[in-house]
Amino acid sequence: MTDWNARRDHATDTVRRAVARSEHSWADLAAALDRPLLWTIAALLGSHALPADLAAQAGELLALDDETVATLQEQPYRVRGDELRADPTIYRFYELLGVYGPALKEAIHEEFGDGIMSAINCNVEIDRRADPDGDRVRIVIDGKFLKYQW
Amino acid sequence: MTDWNARRDHATDTVRRAVARSEHSWADLAAALDRPLLWTIAALLGSHALPADLAAQAGELLALDDETVATLQEQPYRVRGDELRADPTIYRFYELLGVYGPALKEAIHEEFGDGIMSAINCNVEIDRRADPDGDRVRIVIDGKFLKYQW
Amino acid sequence: MTDWNARRDHATDTVRRAVARSEHSWADLAAALDRPLLWTIAALLGSHALPADLAAQAGELLALDDETVATLQEQPYRVRGDELRADPTIYRFYELLGVYGPALKEAIHEEFGDGIMSAINCNVEIDRRADPDGDRVRIVIDGKFLKYQW
Amino acid sequence: MTDWNARRDHATDTVRRAVARSEHSWADLAAALDRPLLWTIAALLGSHALPADLAAQAGELLALDDETVATLQEQPYRVRGDELRADPTIYRFYELLGVYGPALKEAIHEEFGDGIMSAINCNVEIDRRADPDGDRVRIVIDGKFLKYQW
Amino acid sequence: MTDWNARRDHATDTVRRAVARSEHSWADLAAALDRPLLWTIAALLGSHALPADLAAQAGELLALDDETVATLQEQPYRVRGDELRADPTIYRFYELLGVYGPALKEAIHEEFGDGIMSAINCNVEIDRRADPDGDRVRIVIDGKFLKYQW
Amino acid sequence: MTDWNARRDHATDTVRRAVARSEHSWADLAAALDRPLLWTIAALLGSHALPADLAAQAGELLALDDETVATLQEQPYRVRGDELRADPTIYRFYELLGVYGPALKEAIHEEFGDGIMSAINCNVEIDRRADPDGDRVRIVIDGKFLKYQW
Amino acid sequence: MTDWNARRDHATDTVRRAVARSEHSWADLAAALDRPLLWTIAALLGSHALPADLAAQAGELLALDDETVATLQEQPYRVRGDELRADPTIYRFYELLGVYGPALKEAIHEEFGDGIMSAINCNVEIDRRADPDGDRVRIVIDGKFLKYQW
Amino acid sequence: MTDWNARRDHATDTVRRAVARSEHSWADLAAALDRPLLWTIAALLGSHALPADLAAQAGELLALDDETVATLQEQPYRVRGDELRADPTIYRFYELLGVYGPALKEAIHEEFGDGIMSAINCNVEIDRRADPDGDRVRIVIDGKFLKYQW
Amino acid sequence: MTDWNARRDHATDTVRRAVARSEHSWADLAAALDRPLLWTIAALLGSHALPADLAAQAGELLALDDETVATLQEQPYRVRGDELRADPTIYRFYELLGVYGPALKEAIHEEFGDGIMSAINCNVEIDRRADPDGDRVRIVIDGKFLKYQW
Amino acid sequence: MTDWNARRDHATDTVRRAVARSEHSWADLAAALDRPLLWTIAALLGSHALPADLAAQAGELLALDDETVATLQEQPYRVRGDELRADPTIYRFYELLGVYGPALKEAIHEEFGDGIMSAINCNVEIDRRADPDGDRVRIVIDGKFLKYQW
Repeated sequence: MTDWNARRDHATDTVRRAVARSEHSWADLAAALDRPLLWTIAALLGSHALPADLAAQAGELLALDDETVATLQEQPYRVRGDELRADPTIYRFYELLGVYGPALKEAIHEEFGDGIMSAINCNVEIDRRADPDGDRVRIVIDGKFLKYQW
Repeated sequence: MTDWNARRDHATDTVRRAVARSEHSWADLAAALDRPLLWTIAALLGSHALPADLAAQAGELLALDDETVATLQEQPYRVRGDELRADPTIYRFYELLGVYGPALKEAIHEEFGDGIMSAINCNVEIDRRADPDGDRVRIVIDGKFLKYQW
Repeated sequence: MTDWNARRDHATDTVRRAVARSEHSWADLAAALDRPLLWTIAALLGSHALPADLAAQAGELLALDDETVATLQEQPYRVRGDELRADPTIYRFYELLGVYGPALKEAIHEEFGDGIMSAINCNVEIDRRADPDGDRVRIVIDGKFLKYQW
Repeated sequence: MTDWNARRDHATDTVRRAVARSEHSWADLAAALDRPLLWTIAALLGSHALPADLAAQAGELLALDDETVATLQEQPYRVRGDELRADPTIYRFYELLGVYGPALKEAIHEEFGDGIMSAINCNVEIDRRADPDGDRVRIVIDGKFLKYQW
Repeated sequence: MTDWNARRDHATDTVRRAVARSEHSWADLAAALDRPLLWTIAALLGSHALPADLAAQAGELLALDDETVATLQEQPYRVRGDELRADPTIYRFYELLGVYGPALKEAIHEEFGDGIMSAINCNVEIDRRADPDGDRVRIVIDGKFLKYQW
Repeated sequence: MTDWNARRDHATDTVRRAVARSEHSWADLAAALDRPLLWTIAALLGSHALPADLAAQAGELLALDDETVATLQEQPYRVRGDELRADPTIYRFYELLGVYGPALKEAIHEEFGDGIMSAINCNVEIDRRADPDGDRVRIVIDGKFLKYQW
Repeated sequence: MTDWNARRDHATDTVRRAVARSEHSWADLAAALDRPLLWTIAALLGSHALPADLAAQAGELLALDDETVATLQEQPYRVRGDELRADPTIYRFYELLGVYGPALKEAIHEEFGDGIMSAINCNVEIDRRADPDGDRVRIVIDGKFLKYQW
Repeated sequence: MTDWNARRDHATDTVRRAVARSEHSWADLAAALDRPLLWTIAALLGSHALPADLAAQAGELLALDDETVATLQEQPYRVRGDELRADPTIYRFYELLGVYGPALKEAIHEEFGDGIMSAINCNVEIDRRADPDGDRVRIVIDGKFLKYQW
Repeated sequence: MTDWNARRDHATDTVRRAVARSEHSWADLAAALDRPLLWTIAALLGSHALPADLAAQAGELLALDDETVATLQEQPYRVRGDELRADPTIYRFYELLGVYGPALKEAIHEEFGDGIMSAINCNVEIDRRADPDGDRVRIVIDGKFLKYQW
Repeated sequence: MTDWNARRDHATDTVRRAVARSEHSWADLAAALDRPLLWTIAALLGSHALPADLAAQAGELLALDDETVATLQEQPYRVRGDELRADPTIYRFYELLGVYGPALKEAIHEEFGDGIMSAINCNVEIDRRADPDGDRVRIVIDGKFLKYQW
């Protein structure tokens, strides 16, 4: 692993450890930073750079060292391979892509034409949906359609 | 590739080719079979076995040969590796998992405890959301939470 | 894929297709051949050579061609990579090995000493266990302990 | 390897080393914590988070440092690839999946319909079965059947 | 390889073979179809669906069979892994990404902020630049900047 | 990772961190060193050895330690695999190669004959092109054609 | 797979199938050809070219077609990856290399100096060794030591 | 690499380094411990746990630290992938499996029936065989045959 | 494998088979075509396009069908992965790169500066060198040095 | 990476760093040690063990620490995978094998019969050949032919 990804990972683990041993939940942190829940977690885990003020706020809430606060503001290298893919909670989403990925592709092309759903201009929400047979995880992905064009 | 996956793939391609050259859209087919859109596409592409009556109906609508109609009713081997992953329309979803997968995991554990969102007791919807900056693809994944329990 | 594995796969698919379109269940076939259920399925899918009489019997029950009946009696090359691993029904067992594999190893060494559970002198059973919260799959693996010895 | 998996691994090795050099067996530890044997080993090796009281108890029994005791309570990233797969004691189970995986799949579908045996709502037991030809390892996997349903 | 990619590959090879043995250059074909050169080659090799009229025109110019003409109009699965990557002419571009990829990333972020150059809303041109030390290949990639935004 | 690549990576990360926390942009640095932008970034990230005077200058501007300044002058091992490929900003270029790589190959051969565009005698430029629909990234690759010759 | 390996594989499978359905054992064939057992099997399975007279003799004994007899005499491409490695009977040898490979290396260097045991000037024998606890497979590998020398 | 394999590797390297810089050969050590040569080397390199007395003896002969002596007695995770496979001295054995593996399989099945040569109840010897054309390495593998049985 | 590589492979195998069963050696063919030996073999095996007259000549000498003669003139996709790498005769060269590759790199940079030996403007010769200890293969690679330059 | 390869890598990097920052060229060092150039570089980079006197001499010339001097004399594990393969200077040689590897194989078999060029009894030379169109790298590989023989 490159040194910069290793340094980023160290910051990520510092945050995870701090959250696990603090009184703050991710939901608290998102509320305090006034940002969407998944964006907040993703940013604190290294997928988005935090603006200086949010980094400082997070640093205070979680009692992070200055080095970690500085690292949280750096432009990240996102998506380091499939290292975490086998974790069962994460794997289920990969499996869904295996089972329904081609169907999503066909549906997108039929409705929108030749192109993709942007993964950049895109947001993701998660919430709990009560159900008598057992509560459900509900995830909404909302991304701009981009047409292939020359 | 095993012979049974190859046979299934042949059926899938027969269906894709038939749809591409017919007057039917996937939406038409879903309406005709009275099943959700993504389930219908996924089943016709080989991710779910079709009940005999639906297979027959699909066979008629798309003028499929008997062998294909029979294959559509067989129990599938789902998810044959990552062969289709590099297609840009499908890849964007893998990228989202790379960027937001760990955040989804943290959010699920915080809200529900230790466990997973089922990829079996789960459904997926897709629709278009109008937006002045360009219409958006909106995907809703809704799966039962399963708790780790002994 | 080597030609002999391809030929074997063709026989396997011929059997799977024949079972799917026949009135016979795997359980029927096992009863008719008077062999354990999983051994019977495994043998018919190419993991064990069938003795000539059982191959002939299976051939009659499933109306198999002579070539397939002959192939079923050949010594197999077992375990062709992980091609089928991503199928969700099969994947769950791989995941269990990921989660509990090291624990199994520790438990075997503590109870038996340094060695392995044989995968050759071994059998596997499967049955249904009724449960008010939903019936359960129960799998019993029973293999001879082999001690490392020089 | 990510920093958090590395930190977890360090805790796991600390535990393994402590057990190897203590007077406690895994069976002792499971009895002391009053939890099933394989669950206990798996949790101490990092596949399940330990509740605070059990972590404290384990920490005392094995004279673990506070950092390790804290790490044992964190939500784990399970299943880090196939790194341990080649160990002969563990490999034999992978081989069994290669030889009998498709047969298990067919048997599950025939008996239960289209779905999977849950690897989440699931437990695993191991014991010794005396046999004149050499004692045998007996493993029982017991998981809830989950049906594919939309 | 899936059957639909195999069918597409067959069409691609039919086109390549037809061009190689015809009197038409790719440049001729692009001019005849009145489309940019690289788009035309890419589409005829299966990276873009051709509109019906262009497919018909190409079919006539290259004396393609009807099946190929129909396939050229189907929505493609793009990017089938790295199979062609080792070809020296193609590999040089991969090598450039290895050598200059991180520099491109830094330059994009510094000039545009956090985001990507779209590979969808993007076009590519190639031409020859005379040079006394040996003529040069000049490639221009022009893609819309997309900002990460929620 | 070999020790020398690890040492180089450490220097690269030292530079990246220094730039991120300094008042200098990459553009500043390139201007100060009087070298093209992408060459400068690439060299400072370890893809080209810096001449001693440029290394010294960079060391002063970024307040680098002597070890880093010395490392920047060593002959590099370039291109350490595809570790950074999954970063979305970098991945888009790989995807372009997947979609247009064979078309580039055909166009090069048609225009220049059998050979390659050199990745050694080659330079790359990047700039911003204003566009009412959103500004665009414009990349120019300019490499000498090399003919296969014995 | 390349066409020539595929053609060779076809010949190999033709031989395997012929042996399986003939009255000849490999031992018979080796005796008839007057060559060592493992060399004979290896040659008939494609690892060594057969001299014309032996190929003809084998062709007669196994009633092989002319094409197969001709292919058996061609210079082979040996060792096509690890495709057969997972077969349990073959895998055990790979496992032995994992467990004892480094020890073999140390022992060779200590006894012979820096170099290798040739895999070219080398032969392999197999026989059965009776043992009251169960008969044993005994394999002897005998290869010339080659010293690193400039 | 997991922390426990890393710790084991450290012990292995400590031993290798100690042997290289001591006056003891592996043969000496095997004689002193009164165990077969290859078993001794393999155990000291981490493939077998050493009984306490042998570990102590080895520790004295090689002046090992206590931590290393303790690690030598722990139950190992054997076979960590193919990391050492490319070393020429080790590779030759892998090549032999590629060339003669299928022949060994056929010979075992013909002589013993369906099953394997155990890699657990197995030992390996190595010696030098004088030969006028250059001395030869002679390796004898002797493993119990295990029959597939339910 | 893509269809065009498969078609090329078929031509290659046709040539190999024709040479093996003809009275012509590769050396004869090279002499007849008046081209260097390795170039001739490489071209006939698909690494270089043959000019029409040479293709025709080769077709006559080897009695090739028209389709093969036409394919030999097409622009090839070179280097299809590492499929043939494990063949012992070819593998030895890969091993040499593993053992001496970094030394070659250092020597090139010391003598020529930062750059590469071209694999395009390059030729390769092979001949036999008599030696009392056994004749030797002598291979000469002669490629133009290319300097990194912007 | 195993600990012993890591320790070796550390020695290699120490040497590379010492050479880069010393007044000695590799050519000087080879002359001083009175050994061929490529052998000297390869040995100092860890591919050959240095005899004690040469290690001491190298240690003095490069002012190496005692640990490094000792490590240079240890028997190496050669060829650790393909980690360095992507470096452009090294990659060109891999590419040559992809383009000309099968031709080398055919030429060797035609001239020498069935066997290989030894990579053990083999040496490699490199020199510069002046050429008006740009100087050329000339590499001579000279290895003993080894015949397949039982």
